[in-house]
Amino acid sequence: MIKIGICGYGNLGKGVELAVNVAADMELVGIFTRREPSSIVSESKVYKMDEIHSMKNDIDVMVLCGGSATDLGTQSPDLAKDFNIVDSFDNHNLISGHFEKVDKEAKPSNKTAVISSGWDPGLFSIQRVYSEAILPKGNTSTFWGVGVSQGHSDAIRRIEGVVDAVQYTVPIEAAVEKVRNATAGDLTQREKHARLCYVVVNSDDDKERIENEIVTMPNYFEPYDTEVNFISQEELDRNHKAMPHGGFVIRTGKTAKNNHTYEFSLKLESNAEFTASVLVAYARAAFRLNELGVYGAKTVLEIPPYLLSTKTIDELIKEDL
Amino acid sequence: MIKIGICGYGNLGKGVELAVNVAADMELVGIFTRREPSSIVSESKVYKMDEIHSMKNDIDVMVLCGGSATDLGTQSPDLAKDFNIVDSFDNHNLISGHFEKVDKEAKPSNKTAVISSGWDPGLFSIQRVYSEAILPKGNTSTFWGVGVSQGHSDAIRRIEGVVDAVQYTVPIEAAVEKVRNATAGDLTQREKHARLCYVVVNSDDDKERIENEIVTMPNYFEPYDTEVNFISQEELDRNHKAMPHGGFVIRTGKTAKNNHTYEFSLKLESNAEFTASVLVAYARAAFRLNELGVYGAKTVLEIPPYLLSTKTIDELIKEDL
Repeated sequence: MIKIGICGYGNLGKGVELAVNVAADMELVGIFTRREPSSIVSESKVYKMDEIHSMKNDIDVMVLCGGSATDLGTQSPDLAKDFNIVDSFDNHNLISGHFEKVDKEAKPSNKTAVISSGWDPGLFSIQRVYSEAILPKGNTSTFWGVGVSQGHSDAIRRIEGVVDAVQYTVPIEAAVEKVRNATAGDLTQREKHARLCYVVVNSDDDKERIENEIVTMPNYFEPYDTEVNFISQEELDRNHKAMPHGGFVIRTGKTAKNNHTYEFSLKLESNAEFTASVLVAYARAAFRLNELGVYGAKTVLEIPPYLLSTKTIDELIKEDL
Repeated sequence: MIKIGICGYGNLGKGVELAVNVAADMELVGIFTRREPSSIVSESKVYKMDEIHSMKNDIDVMVLCGGSATDLGTQSPDLAKDFNIVDSFDNHNLISGHFEKVDKEAKPSNKTAVISSGWDPGLFSIQRVYSEAILPKGNTSTFWGVGVSQGHSDAIRRIEGVVDAVQYTVPIEAAVEKVRNATAGDLTQREKHARLCYVVVNSDDDKERIENEIVTMPNYFEPYDTEVNFISQEELDRNHKAMPHGGFVIRTGKTAKNNHTYEFSLKLESNAEFTASVLVAYARAAFRLNELGVYGAKTVLEIPPYLLSTKTIDELIKEDL
């Protein structure tokens, strides 16, 4: 049994707890939280974050469930000294630096650290690499959604007079279809995705101003066609508190005169639970890589598919190949 | 530059020649054929098959382009003594035995042999392994087509009175949709795929008998809904000599109460050229694995994505992750 620890107990941490509990080859040793452990509702053992390093001999892989903005930049290097780790660091521009920082800590202590796991970066990255390697003459497009963007929802919530808000990123079907048929050319952001907002306000008088502030917000909404719907808190809570997400990676490529379309898509009812499931599969891979003597930081691009599976390679060859 | 040899010059071999010629890091040393080299129309160097072993020091990776039924079972083990190889052995039931035979020859001579590459087995297998590892509670379905099945076309051509024939395997869209929505249950062969045949006959008088022989043919057609169209040789040559193919791997899985759909699809105008492109990407991987000291038989499941790419891992992290 692979002994798993969870660092951070938000939506992602709860998803990891679920995924570890259904994994036949894993046991959950404990959850580590900055909150008061007695305040956490869970059937698992819950420890104070301060205790985490003292349990380094009890845990094979620590799954980091904090955010990229404030947690992982320091937690991943710190924990990679004492544990094999998996994180979901997703700030694309900073991944190279994050890789180096984690690698520097993990290698000297013979630990294995899988960074930037999840679905994008993660599964989508894998598809981009396979498809470009196989079809070198071609174009790759990534679409996201329909899904809730936490960053865009937060941006709306910061507007004065807004009580609550949920923002969906919506891939524009006509653009997806053009990309599939290799007739898209260069698409603008506006042509690829739309933004759909559900907003709860304090006062009806503010609606016009708030809608205007949203649709003109630079970077977040201005480059897109944005639809704003004002609804009640009850309706928001009833219909918009699930966290669906997903998207597409599509590469079209040419060999001689023939066109080929390579397409990957995810449709997820719970972004957090699916991402957690990816992290747990890569926790298995981290454990095995470590057993194989492969130390330091690794990305999903460097990890062969069979290491994620509970089956042996012989079983995989017979049943899946 | 990675020096490539091609063993066998049918449609697949021609596709490999195309793919090697557009690969920035490869050069084609030669094509080996059982036919008289002077009869081959190609800008590449063409050698007699007998000469192949004598060129073991001139070639980094030999790409095998023969068929599973008669060629690869003996060629792959024989050539793996002297070359790193890639093959597309696709007889699912015999892959384990093929793996062992090739492994036994490759290992003692420090050669690397990637077997059963292509798209199914190959890319589809990879998707089956990733999706099952990530969503352990779920169901995977594979659909093939719209595409030409060589085996089914041949079966029709063997019927008395048939001059020529092309058979398309057609995935049934309603079944694909049910699978995506996890409402499919257990589907029969008839519910998943239909068979569409274009047949040229010697005499109009035979049409009824031939149609009956096709639709009642055990294993090949009887378990499916089969449509038979009689057309002229001119129409067959004009409209049905392209070799499109493709298909879908779809896994639906559950985490707690949430459903997720993981979908991969290929739509290929030329089955041979795309398969060849996959083999060439794995030839790159075979070369690199060999440089890394990884010897013996390997499947695509054991090979990390980055080894297929012309980019370095640093470039991949910056540009694709």
